[in-house]
Amino acid sequence: MATLGLIEYEDASPEVRAVYDDIMTTRKTDWINNFWKAIAHDPAMLKRTWEDIKQIMAPGALDPVTKEMVYLAVSVSNQCGYCIASHTAGARNKGMTDAMFQELMAIVGMANETNRLVAGYQVEIDEQFRV
Amino acid sequence: MATLGLIEYEDASPEVRAVYDDIMTTRKTDWINNFWKAIAHDPAMLKRTWEDIKQIMAPGALDPVTKEMVYLAVSVSNQCGYCIASHTAGARNKGMTDAMFQELMAIVGMANETNRLVAGYQVEIDEQFRV
Amino acid sequence: MATLGLIEYEDASPEVRAVYDDIMTTRKTDWINNFWKAIAHDPAMLKRTWEDIKQIMAPGALDPVTKEMVYLAVSVSNQCGYCIASHTAGARNKGMTDAMFQELMAIVGMANETNRLVAGYQVEIDEQFRV
Amino acid sequence: MATLGLIEYEDASPEVRAVYDDIMTTRKTDWINNFWKAIAHDPAMLKRTWEDIKQIMAPGALDPVTKEMVYLAVSVSNQCGYCIASHTAGARNKGMTDAMFQELMAIVGMANETNRLVAGYQVEIDEQFRV
Amino acid sequence: MATLGLIEYEDASPEVRAVYDDIMTTRKTDWINNFWKAIAHDPAMLKRTWEDIKQIMAPGALDPVTKEMVYLAVSVSNQCGYCIASHTAGARNKGMTDAMFQELMAIVGMANETNRLVAGYQVEIDEQFRV
Amino acid sequence: MATLGLIEYEDASPEVRAVYDDIMTTRKTDWINNFWKAIAHDPAMLKRTWEDIKQIMAPGALDPVTKEMVYLAVSVSNQCGYCIASHTAGARNKGMTDAMFQELMAIVGMANETNRLVAGYQVEIDEQFRV
Repeated sequence: MATLGLIEYEDASPEVRAVYDDIMTTRKTDWINNFWKAIAHDPAMLKRTWEDIKQIMAPGALDPVTKEMVYLAVSVSNQCGYCIASHTAGARNKGMTDAMFQELMAIVGMANETNRLVAGYQVEIDEQFRV
Repeated sequence: MATLGLIEYEDASPEVRAVYDDIMTTRKTDWINNFWKAIAHDPAMLKRTWEDIKQIMAPGALDPVTKEMVYLAVSVSNQCGYCIASHTAGARNKGMTDAMFQELMAIVGMANETNRLVAGYQVEIDEQFRV
Repeated sequence: MATLGLIEYEDASPEVRAVYDDIMTTRKTDWINNFWKAIAHDPAMLKRTWEDIKQIMAPGALDPVTKEMVYLAVSVSNQCGYCIASHTAGARNKGMTDAMFQELMAIVGMANETNRLVAGYQVEIDEQFRV
Repeated sequence: MATLGLIEYEDASPEVRAVYDDIMTTRKTDWINNFWKAIAHDPAMLKRTWEDIKQIMAPGALDPVTKEMVYLAVSVSNQCGYCIASHTAGARNKGMTDAMFQELMAIVGMANETNRLVAGYQVEIDEQFRV
Repeated sequence: MATLGLIEYEDASPEVRAVYDDIMTTRKTDWINNFWKAIAHDPAMLKRTWEDIKQIMAPGALDPVTKEMVYLAVSVSNQCGYCIASHTAGARNKGMTDAMFQELMAIVGMANETNRLVAGYQVEIDEQFRV
Repeated sequence: MATLGLIEYEDASPEVRAVYDDIMTTRKTDWINNFWKAIAHDPAMLKRTWEDIKQIMAPGALDPVTKEMVYLAVSVSNQCGYCIASHTAGARNKGMTDAMFQELMAIVGMANETNRLVAGYQVEIDEQFRV
């Protein structure tokens, strides 16, 4: 169960608990998933990673469900099993329907296909696309 | 300029022209980008790939700009230069603003980071996330 | 032109020249491509890498053109521009036709697509496939 | 068992059954592996993906066992566990021997190594390899 | 030159200048490389990314040259051209010799090879390695 | 348990045993991990891979624990579960502390993030970094 083990709330230092509390408050849940418990051995990383994610995933020009779906799309493309499981749950919580999930997967698959066709056929960037 | 060269419209067979015409009509443009010209040496692949993309990228449960942004997110994660250039242009055409692009990139970066932290710390999937 | 520069034949030490000579003899060519000139700063790596490749790419249960095409397929999947250029040339030299190239690319694209669909849909291995 | 569950033959709609039937007929088997049952929730994707694979994997300029081995090589390079298990079985069914498998793996490993050496040493494409 | 262009010091807002100043002070240089100028359109990302890197790359249990070499190793493995160029320079500045670079590349190549052999041969984790 | 099964010491041919013996002597252990037993079906690959690794991982310009940590960093970046488990153990044996592991993971995560930001923002290499 994780390289360094998992740090449960009751065994956590005050600074780790503060992050755990903020995660639960922000996400309106009463539990902490293993990812945070695994990296909590490095409180600086725990705090930095959570604050980055909190800032990045907050509503902005993109809405929360779109943000979760992009996170899921990248995790699927990278084939990270844990991340796929957790962000599928996260996206559903924010409103992703089965139809949205299916369309998302279709795009991820297609992009991975054409990314390689472009490489294999050695296609150069069109003038129109240059920045 | 591409492994097998590029097939321009004027040199294309009727079946290739038919796909080119459908691309331009569907996308409301008057030119064909290099990707299609490069794979047109294989008319079956050209037709299959275009029809798949047309079906996948059509409006559905996800709107067109979200679909283009997901395509871009995967292409960025895979570091495919051509795909990044073409889908950045595509997403802009469908309404992606600078702010949307910036938030998109932040998520792609973050997902790539945490995908590896999960792997490195050997985090197991929580019961709550299992399907 | 390469991090440490390129070591040309006339500037090479005897041990590097010996590898260069063997490459040209084995491949029946009269020039050395940049990859070897770039890693020649590390003669042990040059020798080890060449001897490994010579052993692996020699005719065996798989014929030379199939071997080159597999090398190309992996390089395309990894989007390594140099490797795609050099192994496309290598595969052509060993008999890869345009039709073979096109079928190869179609498979590489498709495999990259379904690899992600499997991940995204969290598909478990069938009993029948378990070793 | 898969994000959306698996759709068994007896629970499938007529259009899904039609694809399942074609898979079994084409592959001369009497069962459907989990991949198809997992994506069958999206009948359009099921049909599109199967028809693409059927077209791409049909005998052509490359023979069936070579095609399966390329599919396996890419799946190994991408480290997709399900795809490795299923395409190892598929390649064996089409004639891949242990010796062929071993040579295939050796190439996949070597290509992944040299793809990175090329990147790390920042090797430029030789004039002779440019298209 | 970058999707959104590059923000030069003289055109930067006070908050962007503050980050630029801190980068130059910390790194003891008098110029800013393109990466920072490209993401400066998103001042929150600029600040967050810089502060994360500053914290992560500071001397700690690992010394600065080891840290830069690990950064380079990952960038080579991911085949990110820009990152390879910039972190090769960064590692040299911190003391990486040619011999260290060569050994680093040999490991990156080897790890990429064996990572795939493990996947292809479907090797299970030994009891002794389980956490 | 591995595609071709595992070859135990008592069932191994003399040439395979010779490699197993050298592994145990070099590593000062009395057991062989699954990776070697899985690839031992191909004695040429077993010998070649072991000799390469022995040469590459020997103390040189980089010390053994740094070498193991770089191997681990690449394996984490590639998300190879087996390799992460075995090289975490290997690095610990050579002196990696928890603090070193945590800093290593932080760098791997950060590098994966900025590798994509560079790609997404289409950042060009600075003149100062060109070789």
